[in-house]
Amino acid sequence: MRAYLNKIKSPGDLKKLNIDELNSLCGEIRSFLIDSVSETGGHLASNLGVVELSVAIHTVFDMPKDKIVFDVGHQSYVHKILTGRAGAFDTLRRFGGLSGFPKRAESEYDAFNTGHSSTSISAALGLARARDLSGGTENIIALFGDGALTGGMMYEAMNDAGHSKTPLILILNDNNMSITKNVGSITNHLRRLRISPKYFKSKEAVEGILKKVPFFGEKIADMLRKIKRKIRRKVLSSTMFEDLGFSYIGPVDGHDLKALIPCLEYAKKEKKPILIHVITKKGKGYYHAETNSAKFHGIGPFNVITGATKKSPETYSAHFGKTLVSLAEKNEKIVAVTAAMPTGTGLTEFADRFKNRFFDVGIAEQHGVTMAAGLAAGGFVPVIPLYSSFLQRAYDQTLHDVCLQNLHVVFPIDRAGIVGADGETHQGIYDISYLSHMPNMTVLSPVNFKQLDEMLDYAVNTHNGPIAIRYPKGSEQLAETLPPFDINSAVLLSAGTDISIIAAGRMANRAREVMLELENHDLSAEILLIPAIKPIDEAAVIKTAKKTGFVVTMEDNVKIGGMGETAARIIAENNINCKVKIFAFPDKPIVQGSVAELDRANGLDKNSIVKEVLNGKNKT
Amino acid sequence: MRAYLNKIKSPGDLKKLNIDELNSLCGEIRSFLIDSVSETGGHLASNLGVVELSVAIHTVFDMPKDKIVFDVGHQSYVHKILTGRAGAFDTLRRFGGLSGFPKRAESEYDAFNTGHSSTSISAALGLARARDLSGGTENIIALFGDGALTGGMMYEAMNDAGHSKTPLILILNDNNMSITKNVGSITNHLRRLRISPKYFKSKEAVEGILKKVPFFGEKIADMLRKIKRKIRRKVLSSTMFEDLGFSYIGPVDGHDLKALIPCLEYAKKEKKPILIHVITKKGKGYYHAETNSAKFHGIGPFNVITGATKKSPETYSAHFGKTLVSLAEKNEKIVAVTAAMPTGTGLTEFADRFKNRFFDVGIAEQHGVTMAAGLAAGGFVPVIPLYSSFLQRAYDQTLHDVCLQNLHVVFPIDRAGIVGADGETHQGIYDISYLSHMPNMTVLSPVNFKQLDEMLDYAVNTHNGPIAIRYPKGSEQLAETLPPFDINSAVLLSAGTDISIIAAGRMANRAREVMLELENHDLSAEILLIPAIKPIDEAAVIKTAKKTGFVVTMEDNVKIGGMGETAARIIAENNINCKVKIFAFPDKPIVQGSVAELDRANGLDKNSIVKEVLNGKNKT
Repeated sequence: MRAYLNKIKSPGDLKKLNIDELNSLCGEIRSFLIDSVSETGGHLASNLGVVELSVAIHTVFDMPKDKIVFDVGHQSYVHKILTGRAGAFDTLRRFGGLSGFPKRAESEYDAFNTGHSSTSISAALGLARARDLSGGTENIIALFGDGALTGGMMYEAMNDAGHSKTPLILILNDNNMSITKNVGSITNHLRRLRISPKYFKSKEAVEGILKKVPFFGEKIADMLRKIKRKIRRKVLSSTMFEDLGFSYIGPVDGHDLKALIPCLEYAKKEKKPILIHVITKKGKGYYHAETNSAKFHGIGPFNVITGATKKSPETYSAHFGKTLVSLAEKNEKIVAVTAAMPTGTGLTEFADRFKNRFFDVGIAEQHGVTMAAGLAAGGFVPVIPLYSSFLQRAYDQTLHDVCLQNLHVVFPIDRAGIVGADGETHQGIYDISYLSHMPNMTVLSPVNFKQLDEMLDYAVNTHNGPIAIRYPKGSEQLAETLPPFDINSAVLLSAGTDISIIAAGRMANRAREVMLELENHDLSAEILLIPAIKPIDEAAVIKTAKKTGFVVTMEDNVKIGGMGETAARIIAENNINCKVKIFAFPDKPIVQGSVAELDRANGLDKNSIVKEVLNGKNKT
Repeated sequence: MRAYLNKIKSPGDLKKLNIDELNSLCGEIRSFLIDSVSETGGHLASNLGVVELSVAIHTVFDMPKDKIVFDVGHQSYVHKILTGRAGAFDTLRRFGGLSGFPKRAESEYDAFNTGHSSTSISAALGLARARDLSGGTENIIALFGDGALTGGMMYEAMNDAGHSKTPLILILNDNNMSITKNVGSITNHLRRLRISPKYFKSKEAVEGILKKVPFFGEKIADMLRKIKRKIRRKVLSSTMFEDLGFSYIGPVDGHDLKALIPCLEYAKKEKKPILIHVITKKGKGYYHAETNSAKFHGIGPFNVITGATKKSPETYSAHFGKTLVSLAEKNEKIVAVTAAMPTGTGLTEFADRFKNRFFDVGIAEQHGVTMAAGLAAGGFVPVIPLYSSFLQRAYDQTLHDVCLQNLHVVFPIDRAGIVGADGETHQGIYDISYLSHMPNMTVLSPVNFKQLDEMLDYAVNTHNGPIAIRYPKGSEQLAETLPPFDINSAVLLSAGTDISIIAAGRMANRAREVMLELENHDLSAEILLIPAIKPIDEAAVIKTAKKTGFVVTMEDNVKIGGMGETAARIIAENNINCKVKIFAFPDKPIVQGSVAELDRANGLDKNSIVKEVLNGKNKT
């Protein structure tokens, strides 16, 4: 079984295979990917799309001397398989296991860590310049999808790289998709390039024709000469990539090794900024992934025959989407903006129902936020749900364009807190810290769907100014009914006398668990839920701190700049004699793993917290 | 004097003037600008460059019904003059006076606040979409320079806007400069467009030629038909802007009203995404500004005849630049990256001396930081000085690409703290808050040049990992000699018994003033200087807090997420019975004004602090 794949111990082994054997290997890699990811979950469709491309790259280039930077990095599975990591695929995206993204610490074949979109050309250019300064000759490659091209960093990097003339190979993996269908003018531009097949050849053909055009009298000849000049200048420099200083090769069929390998060989020889436009099909070779590549972009374990995944309870994203639709039915001013994630953020129904009020801007969080600010300045109420880790990309726009102008933009922050298997780059554990210090910003955190509904209603219909609502990946944890949401009031979930637990968001449930456990130790804890992290209900914090003299805070965010520090500051400024213990994520990258595993690894599980609290209590 | 200018009460008055009168008006505006800015200081060169363009825009369009978004916004002076604000120009950029940037709160003619680069198309598109949803017909304009085009947001916005087909007028003010000379492939692309004058007309001319080409036999005819198709497709869609879905008009002489006005009229009529490429000269009409436009970009008061400005003491920027050069002489691994600000950040000499090790990436902080991360991954030590408010643009890249990978990138943060006249958008008062929570990040803050030198030496030669050094605009305040910099140790500047003042950076001097004044009230204050804000010397904070029981913190940053909160957290977590008072900027946009005025307005001047401290002390 998988005779070829079993023989590949390192990329060097590829060079011993002929084209037919490489094609057989590709088939084996596909079946391995499908089998493996069906067990572990992971990014399937994009990896199925780059099997031949990855094999061709490793056949032509000499890794790890040559280097490749994967944009986003979820399409690096085949690269991992070819570089000695196939055996670890049963641990993919698990705690302590193989990362779903390139990781320098994992392998010398991984040249640069990625996770967010559109960074690859910048990183590759840095590596190329380091090579030049060191007098090296290795090839540096950036591999990215057409979706990544909607992010502005790519253009910043091409502007710099194309001008620098340093050898750099860009490979555009064009499947006409980001996670869902790609959007914008760049998509149209690529489509035009796609429908002119063999552009690279036709360019030379046109030159040939021109050389053969005979001259009939001076006037016509003049005209033709003018036309020839025009053609030369225009036809020979006509793609946007060429305007940005890159030689363009393409389009190339990304599933045809016989076409791919010579193109890569050519690029390797050229020693200049060059872009190869490769056409691939997302999900290639697996029926379910080809026909529903969005579902199979990032997927949990699934049944290989049927493609079916386990049904999960309603997520915050889905619930948010439903609520937004019902709010939008009543308030015509509500518009929605997404950065290429209509499905992930729950906006599918909104997009269908309110076509004119829905804007997909591409993987362009920066533009999305400032465009939303423009909509708000024009009198509308833009709602722009983004994953916590991706809103990071629009930090300046949120501060500079929305907050300083106090514009009414609503930021539902999806995947806030620990996200699990995607690891370091996707953990949404910084948003409380990066939003709280922005003037005019309000930061809310619901503990269940009902509170999310109330907060969203408040955010679009009552509030005026920037407002963020952060909610975790997955489903609600605390389904009970709370008093109606009040921006000014924390909620005393249960009263106690010995210890105050101040908790927000998903940690409300942990607070409950800890309280119950503390009862077993004859300690009475009260729980203060914080729906509004900013502005926080200072009076309630002061009251509970004075009452118990021992405040414990819990949040799904890093400690520095988080809710716990705010509580500590309030207590210190008010000179309350009170012990404070902050439970939050520590100041280090938080790796992949399940939420429970990561809570445990970072001292945020019930037992660790109880132990620490008892420790602290005994010292008082 | 200035007969035409005096008659312009609102833009409507322009419509009564003929071309000759408008030209006379332009002359008067120039002389007004030179006179006025020579007194107040401000952005002169860029405004001199857009006199005719601003007059043409206000002549053709109907503001404030029609709307214009100024990119960056420092080129809005002529617009302000034409919209009833000439009389306030003696207060330009002063506390309580006219802003140097567009401000919605200042005038209904200012459609959107700007300050940072490359936001204009996004904001304008938002306004255009709001117009479409409201059934409006007003024209929306974005005016930006070629420098702004090096920022990726512009491309994100054009990708969205060009595709949307909503009417939107982009005016590219191309002077081949950002603050200094513009860089990158886009510059070359624009240069190519510039040297093909009357492109808009020549496009039609080519079509005319094609129509006239006679056919000589079938074979030639076939060939020609093919060529014609190629020409049509390529010549008629050949600029990058057209690839992105915009109609392109240009280049147009930006100092010729007879050329500008018809172009704008045409764009107004077209009702589609359209880009007008206008060529201007920065500093136009004033010798000194034309010949040294970088100096006259943003300038203090100057002598109109000689162009001379008052000599100021050595700035932190200049000192940093000198030190970096001497470090780079000894350490070949040091490379420098700038985002279009070699002069402002003090890198001019470095750029001259170490051409190969210097990279100007354009106004592209995002790319700059990730490219630096690539250089670091390739074994070099990139130093990327950025203004505090502009590093905001690269928040995600700093966190995701540098910090999570723990790469050795050095971030000198210039203009940290209050910057004064530029106001809200440029205040560097968020960096402690947005950097401290990034894992692996170190944040330093020198109190004088000597400490900056020591920190920089430490950062490039000893440290390994991301490290930021924040220093203020202007010169050092505390010139005295301190003990050598030690990353692990705070500095007890003077010992005391009643009060602990914990201060960082420029506030060290304020701490000294406050301490001396408190002596007059028989209070003995000790001063703990914090060179390393992160990691902070916790032991020193605990020690002083326990000693005096009253901690006062001072920093040139917002309170939320700042050093004071860290100190409060340490005190609360260690259950120290200690009063805490945090002096930092409050949670609201901090307007323009001198440093002294803004300190006073926000309770950070000596008297306010002393008063508050005495208040607090009396309550204990």
